[in-house]
Amino acid sequence: MNSIDRRTIRKYKQQPLPQDTLEFILNSGIRASNCGNMQLYSIIVTQEEENKKCLAPLHFNQPMVENASVVLTVCLDVNRFNHWCRINSADESLNNFLFLNIATIDATICTQAMASAAEEKGLGICYIGTVNYMAKEIAQALNLPKGVIPVTTLTIGYPNENPALTERLPMQALVHYEKYKDYTDEDINKIYKDIEENPVNKAFVKENNLDNLAQVFSQVRYSKKDAEQFSKLYKEFVKETFCEL
Amino acid sequence: MNSIDRRTIRKYKQQPLPQDTLEFILNSGIRASNCGNMQLYSIIVTQEEENKKCLAPLHFNQPMVENASVVLTVCLDVNRFNHWCRINSADESLNNFLFLNIATIDATICTQAMASAAEEKGLGICYIGTVNYMAKEIAQALNLPKGVIPVTTLTIGYPNENPALTERLPMQALVHYEKYKDYTDEDINKIYKDIEENPVNKAFVKENNLDNLAQVFSQVRYSKKDAEQFSKLYKEFVKETFCEL
Repeated sequence: MNSIDRRTIRKYKQQPLPQDTLEFILNSGIRASNCGNMQLYSIIVTQEEENKKCLAPLHFNQPMVENASVVLTVCLDVNRFNHWCRINSADESLNNFLFLNIATIDATICTQAMASAAEEKGLGICYIGTVNYMAKEIAQALNLPKGVIPVTTLTIGYPNENPALTERLPMQALVHYEKYKDYTDEDINKIYKDIEENPVNKAFVKENNLDNLAQVFSQVRYSKKDAEQFSKLYKEFVKETFCEL
Repeated sequence: MNSIDRRTIRKYKQQPLPQDTLEFILNSGIRASNCGNMQLYSIIVTQEEENKKCLAPLHFNQPMVENASVVLTVCLDVNRFNHWCRINSADESLNNFLFLNIATIDATICTQAMASAAEEKGLGICYIGTVNYMAKEIAQALNLPKGVIPVTTLTIGYPNENPALTERLPMQALVHYEKYKDYTDEDINKIYKDIEENPVNKAFVKENNLDNLAQVFSQVRYSKKDAEQFSKLYKEFVKETFCEL
């Protein structure tokens, strides 16, 4: 599948991934770029049924977790690097906000390199965003030590569906040549028009008894109250395991 | 180039990127996964010489910035989405720590999808990590409004070098099956042995008059003092433009 025609795949055949395919995917992640070649990430591979069952409720029971051939939880990890520094009488210099950000980015680069490699092999992938809501609980389930935080979850399997291409905002809405050009109200209305007029999205607005799609997003799907609650939990976990904020 | 044989390319031919190739790359980023299809990122394309020259010192004059055909600065962006919410009487629910993290991840997924697409087309790429050190200054140079933070910088061009494959830690050091298995001192020594014995790295240790490679990393390349200073700056910028911490 071409990278501009790709689809997220949420339904998988019940078929294990051969070890060489899995290792090709893992290697593609490891070969991706990372800050200073410090490789501040770890990849947790979940394949056993009972462990997928244990992760599923932590991902709000999204069915991809149990149905995928493999679930990868990619974590930022300063534990390994700090350990190396410690036994070499070197400073442990990474437990700070800068490296929380850098290691988050590196874990994500690694993940997306694995996603592309999986798709290159004809597999389907789905990111599971709940990992950021439930970071602490997932860390406990995977026995993560201090300094290791789940960043992304990627489910991989053989596609058992053939979904239509998902809508996206038009390219000119997302790309700025040379300088950022801020949007007028008119620009915004134009950018979101197609998405707002999609019958599926219109149905969401009606079902939820709201005025428009923006309200569906910010009042139902990603409400301020939920975002603030999960922010608080994520902050507490970061402070416990990584650094002061 | 296969995803497990890829090399970062830092030297480029002086050759512009055709618009259709650039758009293929941008589209690959836009087609990548993102949280709730909210597309909380913007891509700033720098191609004009004078604008590359203006970015270069903000990236500590790393030569890739001026020499690449295109420099992409991928930013997390809640400005566009908030604007949509505002004109639709919907809550602005994203200016919090959870979505700082989620939008950082989504901007990075988009970037790495573009990196893979560029390599698929025979181009070379290099990430420029200084973007996280100089986020505020780069935001000013690119006219970013509030709610928009540079996350990654990717330089792209036609390769003008053919470097050897970079060293990486062994796969078993980075991958944990089912549960995280913490490292013993012996594990750590084994994991880092090849990197420590690489003659180039041994030379770094000697040049810097240090005892070992871990000290080169944590005392010279990524010192605690620098990391704390740049953490402070990044935190201040996040508080100014995005959310309380």
